[in-house]
Amino acid sequence: MPDSVSDVGEFGLIDAVTARFPQGDGVVVGPGDDAAIIAVGSGRVVVTTDMLVEGRHFRRDWSSARDIGRKAAAQNLSDIAAMGARATAITVGLGAPGDLDVAWTLELADGMRDECARVGASVIGGDMVSSETVVLAITALGELDGLEPVLRSGARAGDVLAVCGRLGWAEAGLRVLSRGFRSPRALVDAHRCPEVPYDAGPEAATLGATAMCDVSDGLLADAGHLAESSHVRIDIERERLEITEAMREVGSALGADPMTWVLTGGDDNAMLATFPAQVPLPERWRVIGRVYDGEGVRVDGAPYEGDAGHVHFS
Amino acid sequence: MPDSVSDVGEFGLIDAVTARFPQGDGVVVGPGDDAAIIAVGSGRVVVTTDMLVEGRHFRRDWSSARDIGRKAAAQNLSDIAAMGARATAITVGLGAPGDLDVAWTLELADGMRDECARVGASVIGGDMVSSETVVLAITALGELDGLEPVLRSGARAGDVLAVCGRLGWAEAGLRVLSRGFRSPRALVDAHRCPEVPYDAGPEAATLGATAMCDVSDGLLADAGHLAESSHVRIDIERERLEITEAMREVGSALGADPMTWVLTGGDDNAMLATFPAQVPLPERWRVIGRVYDGEGVRVDGAPYEGDAGHVHFS
Repeated sequence: MPDSVSDVGEFGLIDAVTARFPQGDGVVVGPGDDAAIIAVGSGRVVVTTDMLVEGRHFRRDWSSARDIGRKAAAQNLSDIAAMGARATAITVGLGAPGDLDVAWTLELADGMRDECARVGASVIGGDMVSSETVVLAITALGELDGLEPVLRSGARAGDVLAVCGRLGWAEAGLRVLSRGFRSPRALVDAHRCPEVPYDAGPEAATLGATAMCDVSDGLLADAGHLAESSHVRIDIERERLEITEAMREVGSALGADPMTWVLTGGDDNAMLATFPAQVPLPERWRVIGRVYDGEGVRVDGAPYEGDAGHVHFS
Repeated sequence: MPDSVSDVGEFGLIDAVTARFPQGDGVVVGPGDDAAIIAVGSGRVVVTTDMLVEGRHFRRDWSSARDIGRKAAAQNLSDIAAMGARATAITVGLGAPGDLDVAWTLELADGMRDECARVGASVIGGDMVSSETVVLAITALGELDGLEPVLRSGARAGDVLAVCGRLGWAEAGLRVLSRGFRSPRALVDAHRCPEVPYDAGPEAATLGATAMCDVSDGLLADAGHLAESSHVRIDIERERLEITEAMREVGSALGADPMTWVLTGGDDNAMLATFPAQVPLPERWRVIGRVYDGEGVRVDGAPYEGDAGHVHFS
C-alpha cells in the first residue's frame, strides 16, 4: 500500500512538499516560519496562508458566523504579527455549500472585516466556490516598517522565553463546549475567537527578540518549533504559567488538570518569543522559561509526559 | 426561506460581500479586478486568490496530479499577468483527505513548482488541512516592474479588442473527456492545463493597453467584465475567431458548434485586452472586435443568443 497523507501526518507531508520547492532570489524568508517574506522593489512583504475547515476548525452550531470570520482572520493576522510585522491586507477564499444562508455569509464577512479593522488591514479580494462544507483559505500580507523580521531560528543559550497573551483559554473553552455547556463565557468566547495581542509582535522586534512564533499548535509544540529552528533546548517553568480561576473551576468540574490545557492547548495565538536575558520586558510579557544549549523542550527540567501536540476537535 | 448562496449566485454574493469591506489608504486596487494591488513601502504588490475544488474544477480520474498542480498555479499566475504584472511567488492552501496518496500530493507540488518556474515564481509557503475532498487555495503575488497596472476599467470607444492565447480549447477538451474519449490530445491537454501566454500581460501594458483581463469565465463573459467596468459596449466579430481543425472535428463528431466553445468556453486563460486603434500589435495579438459607446457585449452587432457564461462541470 502506498503511504497516505494520514500515514505521514501534516508536518511530515509539509516537509516533503517543501523540499521540492526551490526558492528564487526575491525570497527573503521561504517556507517554515510563521510567514514568508519576499522582496517587492526596494521593500519587503510578509505573506502567510491558513485554511480552516468546517467540522475540524470550527462548528457552525458552536460559533456564530461573525466569530468564525474573526477567528479565521485572526489566525492569519497573528502569523504576520509573529514575524514582527504589521498586517495590511487579507484575501479570502471561501468554499460554500449551495444551501448556505446568504445572511450567514455576510456575517462571516463582517467578522473578517472587524478583526482586520483591529490592525488597520483591508480585505482586498478573494474567490468563492461551491464546496460540500464551509472551507476558508485566508492569505494575509504585512509590512515590516523598517524593522528586521523576527524568525524562529534566532534563539540563543542564555535567552529568556517570554509570552504575551493567553494560554489554554481556547482549549478550556473547547472542553466546555464539547461537554454541552456554554459557560464560563470568557473561555467559550476564547475558543470562538482569540484575543490576539497583535502589537506585541512589532513590540518584540523593537525590543530585540531573538526568535518568535505565535502559539497556535500549543505552548510545548510551538516552543518546540523555536527550539528546533534555533538548535537550542527550551525549559519551561510550570510555576510561571498562569491558570485562571475560571480554568481551575472547569478543570475541577470536568476532572481534568488545567495545566495540561496551558501547556498543550492551541488557538489562543499568544506571542511566544525569546529575548536576551538583560532586556527589560514590558509587564505584559511574562518570562516563562529559559534557553539552553541542547535540543527539545523540557518542563521544569524534565521531558513532558503526555501528548505535546494540539489536536483539532475532529 | 432565507436566501441561499445558490439563490443569489457567485457573482451576486461576491458583490454583496465586497460592499462590506472598506478599503484602507494602502489599497491601490481593491476587489473587482483580476487582482488587487497594495502599497508596500515605496513599491506595490499585486495579489490574487483562486480556489479549486475536486469534482468541480478538476477530476482526479481525468487529470494527473501534476496537471492539477500546474492548472491551479496557472489560474493564479494568469490573473497576475492580466494586471500587466510579473508573478513572483505563490502560497498554497491544500485540503486533503487522509487517505490521499502521498505520491499524488508530491506530484501535485511538482506541477505547481513547474508552472511557477515558467514565470520565475517561487512557492513560498502554505497550509495543509484535512478535508473530505481535495481543495486548493492559491494566492499569487506579483510585481509591476515600474509599469502602471492595466485595469478592467480603462477601455474607451474607438479601441480595438484583441486576444493573445487560446479560446475554446479547454472547453472542447472537456467535452471530449465528458464523452469518455481521450483524444484529440491537444484539446484534452488544454483542459488539463492551460498554456498561458504570461509575458503577453506585461507586453500589453508596455504597448499601452487600456483595459485587460484573462479569459477564465469565457470570452463573452470576460469581455462583459471589461464592458461593464469600462462603461462601454464591446462588439466581437465571429469571423476573426479561430476554430482549429481539431475543434472542427470534435464539433462534427459530437454534433456541436465549436464556435460556441470559442465564445463561451473558459479556463484557457488567454489575455484579453483593449488598445487604442492606432497601436501596432505584435502578431500574436489578434484583433477580434471593437469598443463602442454603450453597454454590454455583442457578436457581429447583435446580442448573443445562448448562455454566455462558462459553467464548471459539476
